[in-house]
Parts: sequence; C-alpha cells; structure tokens
Amino acid sequence: MIASGMKSVVILGSTGSIGENALRVVDSLPGRFAVTGLAASTNAERVMQQAERYGVRRVALADHEAAAKARSIAPNGVEVLEGEAGMRAMASAPETELVVCAIVGMAALAPVLAAIEAGHDVAIATKEVLVAAGGLVCGLCHENGVNLLPIDSEHSALFQSLQDGGLLPWCARNRCGPKEDLAVERIVRRLILTASGGPFAGRPDVDFETVAVGEALNHPRWRMGPKVTIDSATMMNKGLEILEARWLFDMPADRISVLVHPESIVHSLVEFTDGAQMAQLGYPDMRLPIQYAMTWPERVGNDTLPRLDLALAATLHFSEPDPARFPCLRLAREAAQAGGLVPAAMNAANETAVERFLAGEIKLPRIWEVVERVMGEFGSATGADDLGAIKEADAHARRRAAEFLEGRA
Amino acid sequence: MIASGMKSVVILGSTGSIGENALRVVDSLPGRFAVTGLAASTNAERVMQQAERYGVRRVALADHEAAAKARSIAPNGVEVLEGEAGMRAMASAPETELVVCAIVGMAALAPVLAAIEAGHDVAIATKEVLVAAGGLVCGLCHENGVNLLPIDSEHSALFQSLQDGGLLPWCARNRCGPKEDLAVERIVRRLILTASGGPFAGRPDVDFETVAVGEALNHPRWRMGPKVTIDSATMMNKGLEILEARWLFDMPADRISVLVHPESIVHSLVEFTDGAQMAQLGYPDMRLPIQYAMTWPERVGNDTLPRLDLALAATLHFSEPDPARFPCLRLAREAAQAGGLVPAAMNAANETAVERFLAGEIKLPRIWEVVERVMGEFGSATGADDLGAIKEADAHARRRAAEFLEGRA
Repeated sequence: MIASGMKSVVILGSTGSIGENALRVVDSLPGRFAVTGLAASTNAERVMQQAERYGVRRVALADHEAAAKARSIAPNGVEVLEGEAGMRAMASAPETELVVCAIVGMAALAPVLAAIEAGHDVAIATKEVLVAAGGLVCGLCHENGVNLLPIDSEHSALFQSLQDGGLLPWCARNRCGPKEDLAVERIVRRLILTASGGPFAGRPDVDFETVAVGEALNHPRWRMGPKVTIDSATMMNKGLEILEARWLFDMPADRISVLVHPESIVHSLVEFTDGAQMAQLGYPDMRLPIQYAMTWPERVGNDTLPRLDLALAATLHFSEPDPARFPCLRLAREAAQAGGLVPAAMNAANETAVERFLAGEIKLPRIWEVVERVMGEFGSATGADDLGAIKEADAHARRRAAEFLEGRA
Repeated sequence: MIASGMKSVVILGSTGSIGENALRVVDSLPGRFAVTGLAASTNAERVMQQAERYGVRRVALADHEAAAKARSIAPNGVEVLEGEAGMRAMASAPETELVVCAIVGMAALAPVLAAIEAGHDVAIATKEVLVAAGGLVCGLCHENGVNLLPIDSEHSALFQSLQDGGLLPWCARNRCGPKEDLAVERIVRRLILTASGGPFAGRPDVDFETVAVGEALNHPRWRMGPKVTIDSATMMNKGLEILEARWLFDMPADRISVLVHPESIVHSLVEFTDGAQMAQLGYPDMRLPIQYAMTWPERVGNDTLPRLDLALAATLHFSEPDPARFPCLRLAREAAQAGGLVPAAMNAANETAVERFLAGEIKLPRIWEVVERVMGEFGSATGADDLGAIKEADAHARRRAAEFLEGRA
C-alpha cells in the first residue's frame, strides 16, 4: 500500500529528539517517505499521536505497561507490539527499506541486529550499539549486504566528506558495489571529529565537583536528549564517537583525532593522504544529517533546513581538547586499544553513571571515575563478536558500576 | 617511449610559479608522470634546464628571440618550437594525456584551444582564458569530450567539494559519462569563493592612491606571480574567479558568492540545496590543487604536501567583501551579467592596467577606473563564441585602456 517511489521507513525511538526530527524531515519532503512503523520506549500517547498523523498501522513499545496503555487508546486496526520481541519484530518487518534507529543506549542493539538480519539498511543514531558491538554489527551488515548510514552530525560530516570520486566508506559499500581499489584506508590519513566541548570546555574555572545537573544539561550549541547532553559535558560523547567512527569507517582509533570547535559549524573533517581536508559545515541542526542518511545516496533539496552564513558566524575557533580535564577521551582510546569487551563495559558503566548523575545522586567526576574502575576489571577479553558475551559484559559492568557508586565495592 | 602506467603531460608556462610547482608535483610522485613537452614565454635558460632534468625532447618558446637563444643552447636532438604556432603545436602534440596550462593571461587562449581540439584534457590555471572565452572553450570541450580541470585553489576546492555521490561538475563530465539526473544546478544552491582579500582588505586605513608596487606585491598568504598578486590586491582576481567558476561549473554568476577569509585555509565552499556546505581546507600551497588536477579522477597520497593543523591555525575569520573599496568585484559581476564580449574587454583592460601599475606608471585606482571606462564602451555584443571577435575585442580593449591611461582618450 506504499505509493510508488516512496521509501518505506520504520522509526525506532520516534518520540525522542532524533525520532521527532526524523518525522520533521518526512514532513518537509512530501511524497518521499512512507512511515510504516513507529517504536518508542514508554511514551504511548505520543507514539499513538504520531501513528495517527502518519497513518501508521503498527507500533511497538518496549515497555509492557506503555504497550498496554497504547492498546487502550489505539484505534481499530492499529497493532501494538511490545517488549524486546516487539521491537525486533518492528525492526525486521518486511517491505521496509530503511530502519532509522534513534533509540537511546544499549536497548537499540537487539532491534538493530534484527533489522540487519532482515536485510534492511539502517540509519543509526545510537552510537552505543557500535561502541559495544561494532564488530558484530559490521560483520552482520557485510553478510547481509546492508548499508549502515550515520546520523550523528559528526559522522554524517565524515560520511559526506568521504563521498569523493566514487569512494564509498565501508559503512555504505554493501549495496553499491565495492570499490576496493579506492579503499578508504589507502587514501584517508585520518578522520577529525570536531567537538563543541560541551558547556565546560571553555570554562577552565569550573569545579566539576560542584556542577549541578541543570548546568550540565545546558548545552551551548545543540539541543539533544539528556543522556547525550551529559556525555557531551564529560566529553565521553566524543570518546564514544571515536569508537563509532572506528567501526563505521573501518579506521583504527589512532587515526581518529578530536578537535575542539565551540561554534559547532564545521561538523568534522577528513584528512586525505594528499593533505586535503574535506569538511561539511552548517548550523547545528540534526535534520540535515538525518535527512542525508534517509535520502542517501541522493542528496535532496530542502528549503526548510537552515542556511549557513559564514560571514555572520564571523569567527571559528579550533583547539586541542584538554586531556586532564576530560579523562573520558583517554578512557575511550584505551577501550578502543584494548578491544574485546572493554568498550561494552566502558559504555555500560557510563550509561549507569550518567543515569545516576541525571537523578541527582552523584557528582559529575564520579562518572569517569567509575568508568575507569569498571574498565580496569575487564581484560581485553575475546568474544566481542558474540551477542551473549556483549550482553553479559554490559550487565556485569552496570552491576559493578552501581556497586562502586553505592560504595558496596 | 612513455613507461606504462605513466600519464604523459605537457606543461605550458613551465617556468612560472604554477609551472615550477607542477614540476615539483611530478618530482614528488615518481613513476606517475612523463613530462613530454615544456613551453615558456621568454625564459630560454630555465626551460632548457627543465628539459634536461625531465628528459624532454621538445620545448616551445612563445618569444622568437628566446627561441633562438634556446636553440643555441639546446643539446642535439632537442627540438625548439617558437611563437604562437609553436605553442599550439606543443599543446596539441599527439600521445599527450594532459596539458597543464600555466601561461599567464590571454596568451594561453590559442594553445588551450589547440589542446582541446586535439582531444587532450586540460588542467587550467589561466583564468583569463575562461573569463574572456569561456563559452567558446567549454563548447569545444563538450564537442571533443575533453575534461577541463581547475588548478586555481578556489576552483579546485569547489571541484573537490562537488565530487559528491557520483555527481560530477560540468567541467569533468565529458570523459566520465554524463550524470544528467544529478546535474549540479539541481542540487547545488551556490558556490562560495573565499578570498584572502589581498594585502589591503584588512587595512581600511590604506589610501589606494599612495600604494607602492612593492606593497601591492606583498601578499600576506600566497606566493604567486606578479599579475595575479596585483589582481588579488584589487580583488579583480576574485572577480575573474567568479567568471571562471561560472564557466567551469556552469553556474550563473548570481549563484556565486564571495567571502573574505584572510587566513586562506578554507579554499572555497559549495552550498547544496539541503543546506550542507562542503569545503576543502588546507594551508595555502598550490601543489595540492595542481596535483589534484593532474591525478584526477584519482586522489593520490603525497607526504611532501603540507598537513593542516586547525588547532594551530586556531582562529578562522569570515566577512563580506567591501564593495566600495573593491569596485572590481562589482565590475566583474556586471561583465558576467552583460555577457558577450564584455568579460573579454574587462579582462584585457585589466591586464593592460596591471602591466602599467607593475611598471610603476600608474596608481592602483587607475586599474578599476580604466576597466570601468573600457567596459562602458562595450555593449553586450554577441559573438563571444567566435575566436576572431574575442581577439578583436581583446585588442581593442587593450588599445582603449592604453589610450585612457595615457590621457589620449
């Protein structure tokens, strides 16, 4: 029942910041996308509103109570799936061309794997999936001929900068025919992730012990969900992005740099082996990278997206990050170096600690302290390509993080 | 006699700044290029040194006395061509894969046309050719299946930024199969040429009536030949580049912006219709754009080229150009709007006036004053696709410019 020429899209995490922006992209490009499924964690009311608006006949809610509520308000003929099984069924629904994954955190892993196994391309916003299970996810993409399209603004900028002369980065080679002779690793010297630095990079006077939740949530450039905003304040966000880029572009972490750029105009750069750096610039607005992932390999005009005026921006600043004030960057590099289950452990400990910080239970520096302690308990164990091992590492790291934070370890 | 896998290259204007840099590129990529011909205007000694170093058996000198001198010092078996006919013969020599045109000014037109008619791809540094005869040159490229590859750093940056998702700009579509469905004009909103602004953009206190030749030649960022350095000081260089981009990328001049960027790190940007701006960044060094044009469609690693460190660059500034202080920008837009022979007249008047300024005979503001007066004498006459008409307009504009400058008009 999808009109010809329309791309059928399932949006996982449709009630969050990225999900809502994905729907704005759908709105702004009429006739291009048919939304065939929506999934959320708990927000039954909003997901049912969205289902009505986009004529969606099938929704999923990860939370069982929320699913029950959704069923109670769902009009006739709208199916409500529930739990992890429901999320997986939604992600792997037939006649889907693209699954947009905007679920926060590790809960995204099972649905993403289901989408890939069903052969659906995945536009991925959830960096935790790649951090913890990059090898597993990328291996499955390769097996199933699935393109993995970045939504993170930095990785989208890298992705756009890599569409050079027929060169396709690893993440998007699967459906377009390999160009092995133009392999990324031979002509790319390094990837340069820009970082706003969050609310504290430009304020060396701030004592992290005294930072209130509201201050850490007050991001100077980007309006994002709370988890990623706190990650931005600790710069763990950039650490996770190093690991994300490592998998998306098949690039060793030591060839991925971080550059602090408070204006968030240059969204990241690729340095080629001839010294050229290619970059994508724009005002901070997630709709552009979301749209690029959704319309790729086409680039599609959209007058509702903001137009950068560099003369108005006037001045752009760049500097090295401060490793002493932001230990999370070092921890992420150590995790990338260690490999195995260490990145999954790092990510799980971080998610646990950020939840506690958001709940007002711990101070900001406890986040990196507990991440480092939990990471220290994991060797560079093998088995990272195994879903069971990753889930176990994730659960174990969460438990240990909680114990450390509660002073029970 | 060219080793297999090597690209045979003829360099026109080999003793100038671009020509010497093209030879440095050849040096730094051993085994990739065979230099099969060299041509210069007057510097017989240098061109013969180059011929010996690169094992070139055939050189051309535009100047007859210089050709005679070259013959007197040429070793046995090295042929010396002369005059415009010699330059044309060199440009159209068989078994040439690429002609690098680094001749200054309108003298490049005849050899470029000869190269195109012979079916050779042309890497072009001489913007005057496109300014005065863009319609003729581009029409011939299309007829002969010739790619026209930009060497100017700004146009190279645009060219690199346009290699997006299989999209090829007009100038490089001829040999690679048209992708009409991805036509530049549909997905590109505008081209943004960056301008250092030359030595005077950041010095509003400078009275142009008092500027000495040496001051105008003291460019803060780029080391270039004297003609283009003076053009940079008046910003006519950017005006010429608007016209150059108009032809290279088949883009109307009103969709080509100019942005002052004194650090010359962002070499130009393309704004796509989805709001994304793609840019190429690097330290100012002509070897990169020269190499890119010479190796295209490949991008080739070269460790001798400089590596940009944005954290060291620290701050990049952007502003609108000041139309009151730099009337040449307005004049170039008027010439683009008028079309016909007006751009050729503008270019000829400018070349004439710059020569006089370099000789210490006139003050800087006379340049734009005489350009405006000469342009005023040309209507938007037809016939710009005709070589005879262009040459006549060029000669007439030079004569009128000289008369104005000598107070005889």
